[in-house]
Amino acid sequence: MVGNMNTLKPNWFSETCDMWPGATFSFEVKELLHEEKSPYQQIHVFDTTHLGKVLVLDGIIQCTQKDEFSYQEMISFLPLCCHKNPEKVLIVGGGDGGVAREVAKHPKVKEIVQVEIDAKVIEVSKKYLPFMAVGFESEKLTLHVGDGFEFLKNHTAEFDVIITDSSDPIGPAVHLFEENYFTLMKKALKPGGIVCSQAGTVWNDLDLVTSTLRYCKNQFAVAAYAYASVPTYPSGQIGFVVGSLDKDAKLDTPLLVFSREDEKAMNLRYYNSEVHKAAFTLPTFVKYQLA
Amino acid sequence: MVGNMNTLKPNWFSETCDMWPGATFSFEVKELLHEEKSPYQQIHVFDTTHLGKVLVLDGIIQCTQKDEFSYQEMISFLPLCCHKNPEKVLIVGGGDGGVAREVAKHPKVKEIVQVEIDAKVIEVSKKYLPFMAVGFESEKLTLHVGDGFEFLKNHTAEFDVIITDSSDPIGPAVHLFEENYFTLMKKALKPGGIVCSQAGTVWNDLDLVTSTLRYCKNQFAVAAYAYASVPTYPSGQIGFVVGSLDKDAKLDTPLLVFSREDEKAMNLRYYNSEVHKAAFTLPTFVKYQLA
Repeated sequence: MVGNMNTLKPNWFSETCDMWPGATFSFEVKELLHEEKSPYQQIHVFDTTHLGKVLVLDGIIQCTQKDEFSYQEMISFLPLCCHKNPEKVLIVGGGDGGVAREVAKHPKVKEIVQVEIDAKVIEVSKKYLPFMAVGFESEKLTLHVGDGFEFLKNHTAEFDVIITDSSDPIGPAVHLFEENYFTLMKKALKPGGIVCSQAGTVWNDLDLVTSTLRYCKNQFAVAAYAYASVPTYPSGQIGFVVGSLDKDAKLDTPLLVFSREDEKAMNLRYYNSEVHKAAFTLPTFVKYQLA
Repeated sequence: MVGNMNTLKPNWFSETCDMWPGATFSFEVKELLHEEKSPYQQIHVFDTTHLGKVLVLDGIIQCTQKDEFSYQEMISFLPLCCHKNPEKVLIVGGGDGGVAREVAKHPKVKEIVQVEIDAKVIEVSKKYLPFMAVGFESEKLTLHVGDGFEFLKNHTAEFDVIITDSSDPIGPAVHLFEENYFTLMKKALKPGGIVCSQAGTVWNDLDLVTSTLRYCKNQFAVAAYAYASVPTYPSGQIGFVVGSLDKDAKLDTPLLVFSREDEKAMNLRYYNSEVHKAAFTLPTFVKYQLA
């Protein structure tokens, strides 16, 4: 056995989650800006020495100012750019506002509906994370506080794209990883509709990725897994399950290709049309597991 | 200010490096297998609860049994598969044996020369990390203990591919990130030769990536940066600068394409011919910085 190797100082915060035992990410805190127990979860907002502002829910990092753009851009533009006319978009979750910020940029999007279960996350994000909560200011957006699962039950053939920006499958988001949820989303989509859901990482959650993709494949004509690099998430990346009702859809091929001018105008820092295709290219140990 | 948030138990090891302040990765230790100060660096080998065996040099994780394959396969097969006939390969560094293990698998490689500066790293890897040190058993390999920089001064027009599997640009590897080193490698290569060097990550070391790629571009006809996902490295990924003396080389296009049978025969768990191409596809914030 070994002696005390824990060299972290008291002002370092370490992520703790039973989903990923034996390894963790920590950051140095400048100031705890907010701490609160909402009806759904424990909320922390930190100012940090090197990652900017950080939102933590139930001990798990949701986003950091340094790298949130890669996640928000990818979960938004992957589905939007392989739909031929994504006029009406539903966002489930996304209480920090980052996904609304990205979706509102897309030139073809006319109307965004968002359903976030925890009003406190919206409130805290507006106060401490304005670089993401700016998404709530879009004139295209109608924001509801409520349960996305219940919301979908009352909507049929209404949306072109549904983006599920959930926390991990413990706590309030657990139902968003079940096959029923994909059935409900299918019902709420117009013909040719597309879904994109946060779906965990292949290094830590390959079983979760596999089951979520299977549920999507069971309900949708075409489905695939893609991923993005997000250094402050466990294993440094996160993935998305994307599904389309159109049997001829090519999810890895954007129908709308952005020029350098488009990228600049939309302030895209991670997503580009080549990254879209590469995101669906999987390492060998994943490729055959998910095939 | 905040109180004590450091919740890590005493048997957790945290990486510490001035190159990446304010954020760190930690793992739970089952047993410290080895601790030693060599003439070049501090060496630790751990058995861990969830990452298998882990090699740490000067406080920085070099490889874990869980994910070392992605790094070793990519730094080896990216250059080997875009050279038309990589018969003779030089490995600089790579004292754990993992790169030799991968290079030896390639069907066209006939002869491998390796120069590792620290005999203690080789010794410790043979004892505690046999899954990588198995690379030293290849009949294709001649292993030298010495300084790769000095070794190159005495070799001219001899190698088809040079792979530099170094630690980070602090400590013994610092000279391997200088332009002089690329000049020396160029001299040691046969016509059409290719180099591939560990080159840091875009999230933490974009300046380092930029300068290393510039040095390579200054000396080689064609050069590019590619990356792989390695969860236990800072930011969860690491990159490589690849350069070719052949002005018509397409680094992102493998000349030798592997079938599923090839992948199985070589036990490739990360690298495949599509991953090769995708590895050179860069997020927008990197693409234009490196252009």
